[in-house]
Amino acid sequence: MTLDLHADPIALTAALVDIPSVSRDEAAITAAVETALRTQTSGFAVLRRGNVVLARTNRGLPTRVVLAGHLDTVPIADNVPGRFTTENGAEVFYGCGSVDMKSGDAVFLHLAATVAEPAHDLTLIFYDCEEISAEFNGLTAIEREVPEWLDGDLAILGEPSGGWIEAGCQGTLRVRLQTKGVRAHSARSWLGDNAIHRLAPILARLAEYRAREVEIDGCRYREGLSAVRAGGGVAGNVVPDEAEVEVNFRFAPDRSVEQAIDHVREVFAGLELDLEVTDAAAGALPGLTAPAARGLVDTVRAHGSAGVRAKYGWTDVSRFAARGIPAVNFGPGDPNLAHKRDEHVPLAQITAVTEMLRHYLTTPA
Amino acid sequence: MTLDLHADPIALTAALVDIPSVSRDEAAITAAVETALRTQTSGFAVLRRGNVVLARTNRGLPTRVVLAGHLDTVPIADNVPGRFTTENGAEVFYGCGSVDMKSGDAVFLHLAATVAEPAHDLTLIFYDCEEISAEFNGLTAIEREVPEWLDGDLAILGEPSGGWIEAGCQGTLRVRLQTKGVRAHSARSWLGDNAIHRLAPILARLAEYRAREVEIDGCRYREGLSAVRAGGGVAGNVVPDEAEVEVNFRFAPDRSVEQAIDHVREVFAGLELDLEVTDAAAGALPGLTAPAARGLVDTVRAHGSAGVRAKYGWTDVSRFAARGIPAVNFGPGDPNLAHKRDEHVPLAQITAVTEMLRHYLTTPA
Repeated sequence: MTLDLHADPIALTAALVDIPSVSRDEAAITAAVETALRTQTSGFAVLRRGNVVLARTNRGLPTRVVLAGHLDTVPIADNVPGRFTTENGAEVFYGCGSVDMKSGDAVFLHLAATVAEPAHDLTLIFYDCEEISAEFNGLTAIEREVPEWLDGDLAILGEPSGGWIEAGCQGTLRVRLQTKGVRAHSARSWLGDNAIHRLAPILARLAEYRAREVEIDGCRYREGLSAVRAGGGVAGNVVPDEAEVEVNFRFAPDRSVEQAIDHVREVFAGLELDLEVTDAAAGALPGLTAPAARGLVDTVRAHGSAGVRAKYGWTDVSRFAARGIPAVNFGPGDPNLAHKRDEHVPLAQITAVTEMLRHYLTTPA
Repeated sequence: MTLDLHADPIALTAALVDIPSVSRDEAAITAAVETALRTQTSGFAVLRRGNVVLARTNRGLPTRVVLAGHLDTVPIADNVPGRFTTENGAEVFYGCGSVDMKSGDAVFLHLAATVAEPAHDLTLIFYDCEEISAEFNGLTAIEREVPEWLDGDLAILGEPSGGWIEAGCQGTLRVRLQTKGVRAHSARSWLGDNAIHRLAPILARLAEYRAREVEIDGCRYREGLSAVRAGGGVAGNVVPDEAEVEVNFRFAPDRSVEQAIDHVREVFAGLELDLEVTDAAAGALPGLTAPAARGLVDTVRAHGSAGVRAKYGWTDVSRFAARGIPAVNFGPGDPNLAHKRDEHVPLAQITAVTEMLRHYLTTPA
């Protein structure tokens, strides 16, 4: 599969979507991206590590902008290959990854091949396994082994943001709440203590929970506390001695992971349960006051149809934020359509994001 | 494998335990039982159908007693072959099926071979697949194809009852309670409606439920309403749109299946859920006032160390009860040890049940 980086980023989006790349199966798309970068761009040093492709210029410019995008998708749901169609008079492209985030990748790849005289040195990062557990995320190994490749004055993640700058991101925390009881035959249930029944007050607190909203740097964040899994049961005639609920807390970036854990412990305080943190990732403060970020903000505001808002979902911007690098999400596509069977992107947004980003990358600070 | 029906029923129990017969794998034990009945008893017509062996006398006696036992066991758990040992001064036999219910089968087989002049005509039924779904139960086919083989004035199921008469049995009902919500990304949980959170009031009603106790024919029944399975969840970052709890209701035999279903509906009345009945089996009233039952009750009461009590678990007595035949559970072994890895039977109980049953079967009404 050959990718033509000089083609319109719309065509390039379609070409990327048509290379299936569900998490842990990114070898083909990574090879195609690596080959295209090596043969169709100039001035870039290219590095391949596992299924991560990195490329950077070293022109000695005063600022460096990192453009980063993951190449993997959630599982395909009858939506590959993609298809073009028209809806309510607008041209759109349907397909797995069209929004999250192959259209963003396409914009970055196209600009790498076509921006002849950038105002900033550029670092491109295309990586794998973003849609699964953080331990597999391609950036984790990069951060550990060649962290200098992440450095820059601004990191732009091409995650879907509808062409808006989505600033910062919320943190995410997963905890497993387990109840314990005593197993018994259900014909003599009074000899047991039903662990599933003991989930009742836990679920009641979740149902009653009122999530906080908070404004930071002019961006409004909205938290959420959701059961994402419930489980328990031994057999159809057994009172179970264990049951559990996994809860996902999405928290505004003014809380640290530790504060988020404390908050979740408080929510369930007084209940008999074991609480285990199974996954945690810090949020990222918007960071829009940094100079390199201001240029992008000005460009997007000047464009008129978009602006700046909070990012609700957790994204890899927080990795850059944790390294002291301002980071934003900026890409085509409605983030609400990510992971949906009917994921689709308006073609005009791909074009608009390409043009805004081209303007930013070619305009001296 | 040859079974010696004239040997002590204790030895015969050990021989039966040492023939593995997990549900759906009863061919070997059925063949051994069939051969033994055909060659070591007299006066019986023997019929084999699938993995069911039936045998009956036709002496023209005024009453007929049915002795029925299943030959299958739950899965073996490092407890075959069995072993004899002494605990707290009592001799016991450990092994899968020692309690449920090869010791009961052994007593029946031994009496079939050694009771020369019964006071009742006898029907013996040894059947398969009692421990799994009712559709596979060997009695289901017998009931459909040769129902006259089930007829009698009293049916004695050799299920473990500690040498007591356990009368009647409770019914069992399984319902699946499903909640519906709206799926969403957990980073934007306010766009969804969490189906797991909607389980809260269902589990609260289960936790608060006070089970009824009721006395029938001098037997005290105790009901129970237990969640036996909880499930829900799509992925770690998704607000789930479906969740469910499976509930098992064990009900006293004064309720019909329909009344039991109505009761469960009432328990959850007013909550938003779908209720689906997934499994139901009627209970059986004790039936101890029938003449043929009274003789057994008198024998057991005269024995001194045992008596009459309610059976909590569902057993095949309810099949006979549904046909208007008084039916009881009567066998060696503590029913609380059934299905346990450390299943074991006191040898004295095998002897006691053999003697009580021999007395009953040889004493004219």
